[in-house]
Amino acid sequence: MKNSIITLLTDFGTRDHYVASMKGVILKINPRCTLIDITHKINPHDIQEGAFILANAYSSFPKGTIHLAVVDPEVGSARRPILLVTPNYFFIGPDNGLFTFAVARERVKRVVVLTNKKYFLPQISTTFHGKDLFAPVAAHLSLGVKPKAFGHEIKSWSKLHFPKVRMKKNELMGEIIHIDAFGNLITNIDAQQLLHFEKDHSIVIKIGKRVIQGLKKGYWEGKKGERMALFGSGGFLEISVREGNAKKILKVEKGNRIIVND
Amino acid sequence: MKNSIITLLTDFGTRDHYVASMKGVILKINPRCTLIDITHKINPHDIQEGAFILANAYSSFPKGTIHLAVVDPEVGSARRPILLVTPNYFFIGPDNGLFTFAVARERVKRVVVLTNKKYFLPQISTTFHGKDLFAPVAAHLSLGVKPKAFGHEIKSWSKLHFPKVRMKKNELMGEIIHIDAFGNLITNIDAQQLLHFEKDHSIVIKIGKRVIQGLKKGYWEGKKGERMALFGSGGFLEISVREGNAKKILKVEKGNRIIVND
Amino acid sequence: MKNSIITLLTDFGTRDHYVASMKGVILKINPRCTLIDITHKINPHDIQEGAFILANAYSSFPKGTIHLAVVDPEVGSARRPILLVTPNYFFIGPDNGLFTFAVARERVKRVVVLTNKKYFLPQISTTFHGKDLFAPVAAHLSLGVKPKAFGHEIKSWSKLHFPKVRMKKNELMGEIIHIDAFGNLITNIDAQQLLHFEKDHSIVIKIGKRVIQGLKKGYWEGKKGERMALFGSGGFLEISVREGNAKKILKVEKGNRIIVND
Repeated sequence: MKNSIITLLTDFGTRDHYVASMKGVILKINPRCTLIDITHKINPHDIQEGAFILANAYSSFPKGTIHLAVVDPEVGSARRPILLVTPNYFFIGPDNGLFTFAVARERVKRVVVLTNKKYFLPQISTTFHGKDLFAPVAAHLSLGVKPKAFGHEIKSWSKLHFPKVRMKKNELMGEIIHIDAFGNLITNIDAQQLLHFEKDHSIVIKIGKRVIQGLKKGYWEGKKGERMALFGSGGFLEISVREGNAKKILKVEKGNRIIVND
Repeated sequence: MKNSIITLLTDFGTRDHYVASMKGVILKINPRCTLIDITHKINPHDIQEGAFILANAYSSFPKGTIHLAVVDPEVGSARRPILLVTPNYFFIGPDNGLFTFAVARERVKRVVVLTNKKYFLPQISTTFHGKDLFAPVAAHLSLGVKPKAFGHEIKSWSKLHFPKVRMKKNELMGEIIHIDAFGNLITNIDAQQLLHFEKDHSIVIKIGKRVIQGLKKGYWEGKKGERMALFGSGGFLEISVREGNAKKILKVEKGNRIIVND
Repeated sequence: MKNSIITLLTDFGTRDHYVASMKGVILKINPRCTLIDITHKINPHDIQEGAFILANAYSSFPKGTIHLAVVDPEVGSARRPILLVTPNYFFIGPDNGLFTFAVARERVKRVVVLTNKKYFLPQISTTFHGKDLFAPVAAHLSLGVKPKAFGHEIKSWSKLHFPKVRMKKNELMGEIIHIDAFGNLITNIDAQQLLHFEKDHSIVIKIGKRVIQGLKKGYWEGKKGERMALFGSGGFLEISVREGNAKKILKVEKGNRIIVND
């Protein structure tokens, strides 16, 4: 397995030694692998946000990439450490639903509970499985160790529920599932749902006390400061302010409701 | 083209999947290239700040480095995606002035508008050309594809104006063009301008309501908490507080005026 | 020296070009080395925090790793630039105590003052030795240049004092030495000190106006929102709030006192 790529996604932040310690452990086992950060700024303990970001990022990477993700509020408890194998990727992390949205688009070939201590660090802390368990397993996998060697196969694993869009005759009710660094409000409404629902592009979107009419094709169609709705690169309906921060201007939070009327 | 280096500079932040998606796309095309972040914390849509940081960073890299920069408020519009070739470097990004200050010190050999869809991702979104267009072009370039292959040559491209220093008989009037993470205030006044102007090192600098006298050779010359003026590593006059944050202490912002009297 | 790894720890932040400039300089000299960030978010000029994070991270890396650390409020003054050699690692940076806690666990084989200008950039600024001096030295070292070649050996170097725990008959008095990105409060009390002191696990911990009873084995033992004490992965007593931010909830700062009674 040459040129192995391991990506890292955590809620560890970048002020501390946590991420570097994981990378050091990996490089001790496989000094030739390529380490790429997805993000370490997942909101602490926010498994759903981690799952969402991972789902948006994972498929850009080459076939064979190992995605190591640790948002793990139950670390040290009985929650299982797992390896999910799909035809294209490997996913390593806690069995708490973190892989739900990524794996939803892949075919899961095999799920293995990581139990073989041969591939862990000699001492396992109760607080930092990212370093002691997940990092060395990822490194050994990158060297070509077979998934089966890490533990026994299981048939079911934890899944999150993706927040559902409610559809009425002339109304779609969704919510803000992510706010990006620009302040763009990403909703759970995808293109298929909206296209199925609206007939004449004359939609009206209500968010907070604001109303936005119609859909733009891209940010550039708005005037500076204009509030707009469009489909973002992830395929979801997104509320944006041209060269502004929609989160601050519209004073909304993750979880807030959005209503689309035709 | 062995050991290709691609640097990345964006205003995407590091909370989202955007940067990782670009890196994944690059590694899918050229798994052997080295990816180095310049920064992803350019103030959103602030082309001038992006241009300034890029100008400070680019020349430290080896000859042949590909600098991929995306601060792109007009993404999806008619603004052109370009590749600038100099004797030492390649610059890829939107044609909005982002390369002005870097390229000012280089000889531009060729500018190409990126039009050849063969080197883009199959689907181009209207909101994320960083991933769909610029990243794959950079990756193909790193594999040795010739600049001409990406599109047609153009003779003019967008440039920013570097904020001018006004000189009177006994006064230089400049402005704060960047504030770094230490709170140091970096101005647009360079050493040549100041040395040309001052005769006896007895300069007086006014910033906000404060007055600073004389020039220090380095931070260490000040006492703890002292306000000082000196030339920073980028060659510009800089206002600094010894082991303190000049931005917070002097309560100033980017764009504020600075006056030097002899 | 194949597959050389150079880690970087600074207080430069990630908004500016500083870190990228250091990496560019290194790659110009050794394009094949692997660069790993420990962190660039050390509190500005906080040598002790830098020393603490480095001590937690360094030993996870492979033998031969070069740890380049720059928290350098005295940059440009007479403070010495040094290279510390231990049987396993190299440490490069200013001689201001930054390596104290890392090196405390290693045997120091040799300390060299970096004076040989052959291995610096041609122009040395007074403000940015990270780029002009430390980065090129690290890069040349990664190519196999012998430590002696960089300057002359010295026998003593600067050391910080690790904040001492005071022990009375039935009381341990320590302090918060670090607060991580989760808001966990890491103290200077290690397991040996506590185990020596407490006999029956019935300890009482006072922090601010709060009292915490007993020790948990891991975060998972607490109920959501519960304040708890446990030993963190670095081996120090740590105050944590289950799925919460102890710093915000207990309203404490670095340096605040913690008292343990049996």
